[in-house]
Amino acid sequence: MFDESVRPYLITRKLSPENQETPFHFTNLASIPEELLYRRNHFAYPPIHQESFRISILGEVARPRTLDYDFIRSLPPRTVAVVLECAGNKRSFFKPKTFGEQWERGAVGQGIWKGVSLSYLLQLAGIKPSAQEVVVEGWDAGSRDDMPGIFSYARSIPIQKAMQSDTILAYEFNGRPLTWRHGFPVRLIVPHWYAMASVKWVRKIIVTEFPFQGPFQTVDYQIYPDKANEQAKYPVTIMNVNSSIQRPLDRSIMRKGKHYIQGIAWTGLGEVRQVELSFDGGDTWVTARIGRTPVQPASWVHWGYEWDVNRAGEYLIISRAGDTYGRVQPMTAHWNRKGYSYNAADQVNVTVE
Amino acid sequence: MFDESVRPYLITRKLSPENQETPFHFTNLASIPEELLYRRNHFAYPPIHQESFRISILGEVARPRTLDYDFIRSLPPRTVAVVLECAGNKRSFFKPKTFGEQWERGAVGQGIWKGVSLSYLLQLAGIKPSAQEVVVEGWDAGSRDDMPGIFSYARSIPIQKAMQSDTILAYEFNGRPLTWRHGFPVRLIVPHWYAMASVKWVRKIIVTEFPFQGPFQTVDYQIYPDKANEQAKYPVTIMNVNSSIQRPLDRSIMRKGKHYIQGIAWTGLGEVRQVELSFDGGDTWVTARIGRTPVQPASWVHWGYEWDVNRAGEYLIISRAGDTYGRVQPMTAHWNRKGYSYNAADQVNVTVE
Repeated sequence: MFDESVRPYLITRKLSPENQETPFHFTNLASIPEELLYRRNHFAYPPIHQESFRISILGEVARPRTLDYDFIRSLPPRTVAVVLECAGNKRSFFKPKTFGEQWERGAVGQGIWKGVSLSYLLQLAGIKPSAQEVVVEGWDAGSRDDMPGIFSYARSIPIQKAMQSDTILAYEFNGRPLTWRHGFPVRLIVPHWYAMASVKWVRKIIVTEFPFQGPFQTVDYQIYPDKANEQAKYPVTIMNVNSSIQRPLDRSIMRKGKHYIQGIAWTGLGEVRQVELSFDGGDTWVTARIGRTPVQPASWVHWGYEWDVNRAGEYLIISRAGDTYGRVQPMTAHWNRKGYSYNAADQVNVTVE
Repeated sequence: MFDESVRPYLITRKLSPENQETPFHFTNLASIPEELLYRRNHFAYPPIHQESFRISILGEVARPRTLDYDFIRSLPPRTVAVVLECAGNKRSFFKPKTFGEQWERGAVGQGIWKGVSLSYLLQLAGIKPSAQEVVVEGWDAGSRDDMPGIFSYARSIPIQKAMQSDTILAYEFNGRPLTWRHGFPVRLIVPHWYAMASVKWVRKIIVTEFPFQGPFQTVDYQIYPDKANEQAKYPVTIMNVNSSIQRPLDRSIMRKGKHYIQGIAWTGLGEVRQVELSFDGGDTWVTARIGRTPVQPASWVHWGYEWDVNRAGEYLIISRAGDTYGRVQPMTAHWNRKGYSYNAADQVNVTVE
């Protein structure tokens, strides 16, 4: 009765299927423990059976084959620190608001993924010159509200992305076998892309010569800039540059003196180059100190700044990251109907008494 | 690895001291299990020791005495179904926003409390005619940011409230001994008042002839209608009439057809008389069906309405409860600086496709 420690929990957004958010403000920045890694599902968890441990490689390959779990784990391993961000992360911050799960800052997580390069398996199977995309299909399946039929969750990536050695079929997270909730036995990890690409419970790998047209590719995970029609839509792919303030909490009551402001920043293109902070609503900016643990191209950075505040009053604290491709977080997010890829400069309001 | 069921968790607002919110949308309406009952603390959890099992009754009584846990449990029990609502419940919905823990709809909970009437103990001790208030002090204590010193958490109630037989010193919740987190061994339960009155870890009961002036009585838990000064302040006491929509979730995407809209309603004066719903932003209202489990004066009611919607579009669903004292939830909450007692009509936005 007395030994329970105080601890944070996942934030429930939906239970069927399970969609729960990392308690971002109450986790360690370096990596997210498995039990607090956000869970984002399109369908109920797939049952596990004998066939779950076999992955077929089909399509535009010279030697179609089926690989089993033990074989995959016997291949040369590759270990990557990768941030996974749900395309709907921060959806709740759009103005006007959009519909769907109202994720706040916690539909993002990072850990150490170990697996085998997808390119290694594709080379085993022999890619034909006609190959254009690699479709990865999961064991999770079900019906959709907007069209008849049963659909597997399946997504494609361009062959060039599939051949990058850091695109892996992962079987470990943070030094342990994947958990069922996060794709056991084997899931795809696509660094730098929003996490809808990182298919869980991998069942089939299909090399195609045409762009994949599944509903999770061409209906969902598209940016619809217009509320009423489908014109000018384009697919969600590479992550925007982004940052989130971890401390202080929004609407905190603070004392005068020194406070350590901290958060994370990440990008899908190059690396985070800088994080700036404003304490006056964006008129003036200071540069935060950046740390990176572990050092990996597709991991987030953590940043901090010692704020010395001696005047009582209300403050708007803003964080704004920029990357080595020259992208900088905008002050206002690019609104789109389904509420994807929010990356406006982050902000919290505090009062100093 | 495969037997974990999908379940909701508390929503973390602060870890030190622990402040976590009930996942209101994902709990059963009848009662909240202990592990999902919101946790609201002013200080770190107090250590438990031999003295924790003894309660002193002092002040304006003829026979001051100390009662132990076993003795208290041997007295005639009283069992009450009581809704406890944090004074800051729904604080995050104020516009303009106020500072402090940003509670949403889950700083409220209900269960079955068993204990002994406070009046029984006061009569044992013999109340003097001079008695005006009963101060209850908890074992939780610590410093405050706004004044020097160490303070116990302590609150008073008027002698008339203390003498109501449903005001109890509780030692069980939902048929089990209180947990440490919720006041073990003994806590106060004050039906119909906001829950700051229901002191946990009861240490002393002091009958006084003057109004209590502790900081949790006269600084906190006061309604400050003005942002800048302390004029016209008045104390938080009896709960406002209130309702919350449990389903659908805000920003849900729904199909045409029948949907069951449901929620809870409660009040600190009399009983809930009616709950009305609007689907057109407040122009027209329908009456929800009300159920009450268990039937108790200070419990919440649950309500439901079968909504048959056949036109696509966006809908604002509003719930508005009224009580037998003629109070009705306003469309806009009464703003106050510390963000207490929010009770505007509840609302969720949905889209029907």
